[in-house]
Amino acid sequence: MAEASQTLDGWYALHDFRAMDWAAWKRVPSEERQSILNEFKQLVSGWEENEEAEKGSYALYSIIGQKADIMVMLLRPTMQEIEQLELALNKSRLAEFMAPTYSYVSVVELGNYMPPKDGSDPTENPEIRNRIYPILPKWNHVCFYPMDKKREGEDNWYSLPMSDRKELMKAHGMTGRKYAGYVKQIITGSTGLDDWEWGVTLFAHDILQFKKLVYEMRFDEVSARYGDFGDFYVGNILPKEQIESYFHV
Amino acid sequence: MAEASQTLDGWYALHDFRAMDWAAWKRVPSEERQSILNEFKQLVSGWEENEEAEKGSYALYSIIGQKADIMVMLLRPTMQEIEQLELALNKSRLAEFMAPTYSYVSVVELGNYMPPKDGSDPTENPEIRNRIYPILPKWNHVCFYPMDKKREGEDNWYSLPMSDRKELMKAHGMTGRKYAGYVKQIITGSTGLDDWEWGVTLFAHDILQFKKLVYEMRFDEVSARYGDFGDFYVGNILPKEQIESYFHV
Amino acid sequence: MAEASQTLDGWYALHDFRAMDWAAWKRVPSEERQSILNEFKQLVSGWEENEEAEKGSYALYSIIGQKADIMVMLLRPTMQEIEQLELALNKSRLAEFMAPTYSYVSVVELGNYMPPKDGSDPTENPEIRNRIYPILPKWNHVCFYPMDKKREGEDNWYSLPMSDRKELMKAHGMTGRKYAGYVKQIITGSTGLDDWEWGVTLFAHDILQFKKLVYEMRFDEVSARYGDFGDFYVGNILPKEQIESYFHV
Amino acid sequence: MAEASQTLDGWYALHDFRAMDWAAWKRVPSEERQSILNEFKQLVSGWEENEEAEKGSYALYSIIGQKADIMVMLLRPTMQEIEQLELALNKSRLAEFMAPTYSYVSVVELGNYMPPKDGSDPTENPEIRNRIYPILPKWNHVCFYPMDKKREGEDNWYSLPMSDRKELMKAHGMTGRKYAGYVKQIITGSTGLDDWEWGVTLFAHDILQFKKLVYEMRFDEVSARYGDFGDFYVGNILPKEQIESYFHV
Amino acid sequence: MAEASQTLDGWYALHDFRAMDWAAWKRVPSEERQSILNEFKQLVSGWEENEEAEKGSYALYSIIGQKADIMVMLLRPTMQEIEQLELALNKSRLAEFMAPTYSYVSVVELGNYMPPKDGSDPTENPEIRNRIYPILPKWNHVCFYPMDKKREGEDNWYSLPMSDRKELMKAHGMTGRKYAGYVKQIITGSTGLDDWEWGVTLFAHDILQFKKLVYEMRFDEVSARYGDFGDFYVGNILPKEQIESYFHV
Repeated sequence: MAEASQTLDGWYALHDFRAMDWAAWKRVPSEERQSILNEFKQLVSGWEENEEAEKGSYALYSIIGQKADIMVMLLRPTMQEIEQLELALNKSRLAEFMAPTYSYVSVVELGNYMPPKDGSDPTENPEIRNRIYPILPKWNHVCFYPMDKKREGEDNWYSLPMSDRKELMKAHGMTGRKYAGYVKQIITGSTGLDDWEWGVTLFAHDILQFKKLVYEMRFDEVSARYGDFGDFYVGNILPKEQIESYFHV
Repeated sequence: MAEASQTLDGWYALHDFRAMDWAAWKRVPSEERQSILNEFKQLVSGWEENEEAEKGSYALYSIIGQKADIMVMLLRPTMQEIEQLELALNKSRLAEFMAPTYSYVSVVELGNYMPPKDGSDPTENPEIRNRIYPILPKWNHVCFYPMDKKREGEDNWYSLPMSDRKELMKAHGMTGRKYAGYVKQIITGSTGLDDWEWGVTLFAHDILQFKKLVYEMRFDEVSARYGDFGDFYVGNILPKEQIESYFHV
Repeated sequence: MAEASQTLDGWYALHDFRAMDWAAWKRVPSEERQSILNEFKQLVSGWEENEEAEKGSYALYSIIGQKADIMVMLLRPTMQEIEQLELALNKSRLAEFMAPTYSYVSVVELGNYMPPKDGSDPTENPEIRNRIYPILPKWNHVCFYPMDKKREGEDNWYSLPMSDRKELMKAHGMTGRKYAGYVKQIITGSTGLDDWEWGVTLFAHDILQFKKLVYEMRFDEVSARYGDFGDFYVGNILPKEQIESYFHV
Repeated sequence: MAEASQTLDGWYALHDFRAMDWAAWKRVPSEERQSILNEFKQLVSGWEENEEAEKGSYALYSIIGQKADIMVMLLRPTMQEIEQLELALNKSRLAEFMAPTYSYVSVVELGNYMPPKDGSDPTENPEIRNRIYPILPKWNHVCFYPMDKKREGEDNWYSLPMSDRKELMKAHGMTGRKYAGYVKQIITGSTGLDDWEWGVTLFAHDILQFKKLVYEMRFDEVSARYGDFGDFYVGNILPKEQIESYFHV
Repeated sequence: MAEASQTLDGWYALHDFRAMDWAAWKRVPSEERQSILNEFKQLVSGWEENEEAEKGSYALYSIIGQKADIMVMLLRPTMQEIEQLELALNKSRLAEFMAPTYSYVSVVELGNYMPPKDGSDPTENPEIRNRIYPILPKWNHVCFYPMDKKREGEDNWYSLPMSDRKELMKAHGMTGRKYAGYVKQIITGSTGLDDWEWGVTLFAHDILQFKKLVYEMRFDEVSARYGDFGDFYVGNILPKEQIESYFHV
C-alpha cells in the first residue's frame, strides 16, 4: 500500500460556466437589458472589492465555442461564502438568460507538501500564502480542465511508491518551468469534492502557450501513463468595461 | 468462486437531488412564494417529527455547484414509506420549481457482518441498532458519492478470497478511523437497488476533511486497485430556519 | 470458435418506464383528471382481461427515485400486439403527462435449452409453457436490469467452450435456487432486439431479497468475471385500486 | 501493417429515426391532421415511384419501444439526393410533431471485394448490381444496429493479416448462410461517414430470427473477439395504407 | 520519457454545428424570413471578403443526418477574432432558429515540424504559409472528426520514442498521399484547447473518397493501434447562392 501524499489547502474554488440564451435576451426591452447588466456589473464590483481586500479572488472570461459563453471563477476562504456567491449569481436577473452548462468545486492545493520542520505555521509564510491564497491574474486567456490519475491495470498511480510519484512529478514540474512567465497555473484539488481529482486552471497572454504546454507535458511519463483528462474550456478575458459590448444586441 | 460476504441491512435510503428554476420562481408573487415555502417547511417538520420518534431520519443540504441546489436524504424502515415521502415531495408546490437531477436508492448496510454466535437478534443490540438505524448528524457539510468494486482483468474484487477482501477492508477501516470525530460515514448498499453497488454519505463540520479522507483512502489498495467511483456531490447544511433566506428572491 | 447455446423463446416483452410531470398534472381540472385516470384504468383492465384469458401478462409498478414514476411490463405472443399496446399507451391522455424515460424490448427466454429427444413439441409441455408464457406475479416489489456477458481480453464469455459456460451457469443457478419462494425471476433475451443481451426482471415480497440475491450472485464466477450490468430499476406494486390515490393531487 | 481490404460501394443510405409528440399531435384539429398525413403520404409515394424506377429504395417501419416511433431508410445514388430527401422530410408538416432521435449515414458496401480479373466493370454485373443497389424488402420486421471492429490490446482487427480476417469473415458468412430466406441483410459501410464503421440492417418476416441470428453470430470468433456493437432498433413494417391508422388519435 | 514533437501553428479554427428548428422557422412570416436570410448572407459575405483579403478563411456546409443542419468553419489569426465571429453568429437572427449541437476549437498545425536550420522565419516561406494559413477549398463535400492518440496499456503513443512515432506517421502519410488531388486534408491541433488532441477536416469532390481514405488509413499501425476517433460529421457544400433555397419553407 502506497503512502499518501500530503497537501496544503487554501481557498475554496468554484468554476461556473453558463450559456446565454441570446434569442430570449434580444426580446428584453433595451432599457431593461441595461438595468440587468448594471446589476451584473455590481456583482462583478463586489468580487473586485473582495479581491482588493485580499479576502478572495475572481476571474471572468468569455468561453470560445458552444460549451459556454461565460466562465466565472471564484476563490473564497469558506464553502459557505462560495455558496452565497453562487446563490447571488443564480438569483441575479442575468442568470435568467444563462443556462448552467458546467461547474467545478475544488480547493487550491499545494501537492506533495512537506510541513516545515521547525513546526511553524506554513500559512504565515508569505510565499506559501501567495500560492494557496492566489490573486488570479487578469491575463488575456484562460484554460480549464479537470483530470484524474489513472488506476488501470499496470498504470496505477495510487499503487506507485511515493518516491516514484515524486520523481515523476518533479520531471513534470521541469516541463512546466519552461513556461514560467508565459503560463500561470493554479492547481485545485477536488478528490471528495467533485467528479475528478484535480482541476487545472491556466492563464496566458498568448493562447498558443496552452497548447504548447499541455502537448509537451503529455509526453511526460506522469501524463503519458497516468494522466486522464476531462473536457477543456478556453476563453478570452472579459473585463468589466467590456461587459456591455459583449452582451449588446 | 469466492465466498459472498454477509451484510446486515437497516433502514432504506433515498438521496434526492433537485435544481431550482430561479427564473420561474421569481415570477411567482411574493405571498404565493411564502405559502409554497410554508408547505415545504411542513414537509420538513414531518421529517423532523419522524426522526424524533426514531422511526427514520433525514438530512437537508444545499448542494454547491450546478449539479443540484438541494439534496434531501431520507431513511425509513420500508420502501413503501420511502415512496410515500418521494411522492409527497413530487406533489408539493415547491417541486414545481425544482427539476430532479439525480437520485439514489439504497439501504443502510453493515458490511462483512458476522451473525452473533449465541443466535441473539442483532437488531436488539443497541450498538448495532445505532449503526443500521442511524440518526443522521446535522453537521455543517455533506458529501455523497456512489461506488463499485472493480471487476476488470487482474483487478477483480469479486474473485478475491474472502480473507483477502477482509484484510483489505480492515486496512481501509484503519485509514477511516483516523478521521473519527471529524467525519461521520454512512454506508448504504445498493446492489440490485440502484446503478452502483454502494452509496457513501459523509458528514463533517470542516468540509476539507472530505478531501483529506477520500484522498488518503485512495492510496489504500482496496481503493487504488478495486475502487470505481461515481459523481461526487458536496453541500452545506440547510437548517429549517434558513429555508426562507435560501429561497428568498 | 465456441458452439452457440440454444434457447427456447416465448412471449415478447416490453418494459416501459415513464416519469410524471406533476406540475402540468396539477394544472388539469379535477374532473378532467378523473376522466383521464378512468381511461388509464380501462387500459389496465384490458391488460387484466388479456391475462385472465392467458394470452399475455402485465405488471404495473411505481418506480422509486427519479429514474421513472411508473413501469408497465407487458408480455404478448407477437411484436405487433406489443406495438399496439405501446401505441395505445402513447395515445392515452395520461401519457400527455408522462415523459418516456426508458424502455426495453425482449422476449421471454429459456437459456441453454435442450430440445426433447423424442421430438415432441416443447411448447406443449405444461411446465415449459409456464416458463416461457409466464403470468407475472403480483408481488410487492419489482427489480429490472439489463445485462451483457463480457467480451474483454481474457474475460470473454463467447469464447468459452459450451461445457465451461454450462458449468458456470449451473453454479449460478444453485445460488438462485437458495432464493426460491422469495424471488421470482423472469429472464428475457434481447440480443438483436435491444441494447443489452438480456433483461432480468425480479419479483419479491421483501425488497431486501433483491439486494441479497444480486449481491450473492456477483461472487459467482459467471458474474464476477463475465457479468456486465446496466441500470437497476426498483419499484412497489401499483394495484389498479391504488391508481387513483397514487395520482391524486 | 495489415493490408487494407477492398470494398465495392453502391447507393448511399440514410437511416432516420423520429419520435412522435402525441400530445401536440392530438391538439391539432382533425381535418388539419388529415392534410398533414396526406402530405406525408405524398412523400412516401415519391419514395415508391423512385423505387419503381430503380433509382433508389426506401423502407418505412414503426419502431418498438421509446427509442423512436418511426424509422425511414432511404437509398440513393448521391449524397445530394439523400440530403434533399432529408430536407423535404424536415420541412414536412408531420416533422413538426416528430423529434429526431437518431440517424445514420452510410453507403451500401460489398466487403472483401475482389475486382474482376478481366477488368470488366463490376457495376455492369447484374448479381453485383442487386447487391450494391438493393431494393429493400418489404418484410414484416426490421433490425438496425451500427458496429465497429475492436482495436483493444490483443483484440485488434486492424492489425490482423488479411488472410486471418478473410477466414474469420468466411466462418461468419457460414453462420449467416443458415438464415438465408429468413433474414435479409444489408451491410452499409460508414468509416469516415458516421460514428461507427458499419451499419447492419436486417429484414425478417419472423422477428425472432433477428435474435437467433445475432445471438448465434456472437459466438463466431469475429464477433466474440472483434465485434463492438451500438444500439439496436427493431420495428414492424408500416405500409402506406396503415399510415392513417398508425397516426390516428 | 519520450521527446515531445514540435509543431508549427497557424490560424485558429472554430467548427460550429447547428440544427435548425424548422417548425419555428415556418411560423415566421415570409418577408421576415427573407430579411433574416439577408442578414445571414451578409455574415457570409463578410467571411468571403476576409478570405479574399487572405486574413482568414471559411467554409459553409449542410450536414447530412440529424447531428446538425449547418456547419460553419472559420479560420482567423487570433482567438479574439474567432470569438467576435462566433458572437456575431450567436446574435444573428437566424441563430434564434438554430440550436448549437457541437463545436470544436483548435489551431491549424504542421506536426513533426523541424525549424529551418538557417534560422529563417518559417512563416515567411510561401509553401509553409499555404499550409498553416490555408484557404479552405470550396469542394463538394466536407468530413470532420476529432481524434486522440491512445494511451492504453501497451498501446501508448506518448511513450513511444520519437523515431518510432516519425516512422509510423511517415507510413501514414504515404497512405494519405495516394489520395492527393481527391482529398484535401486540414489538420488542426487542439491539445489544451478542446476535448480531443486533433481535429481532422477533409474536403472532397467525391464523398466516397472520405470512406476510402479513412478506411484504408485505419489499417496503418498508427491508426490501428494508436488512433482513437470521435464522432464523424459529413456534409454537402452550401454555396451562398443556395442559402435561400436551402432555407426555403
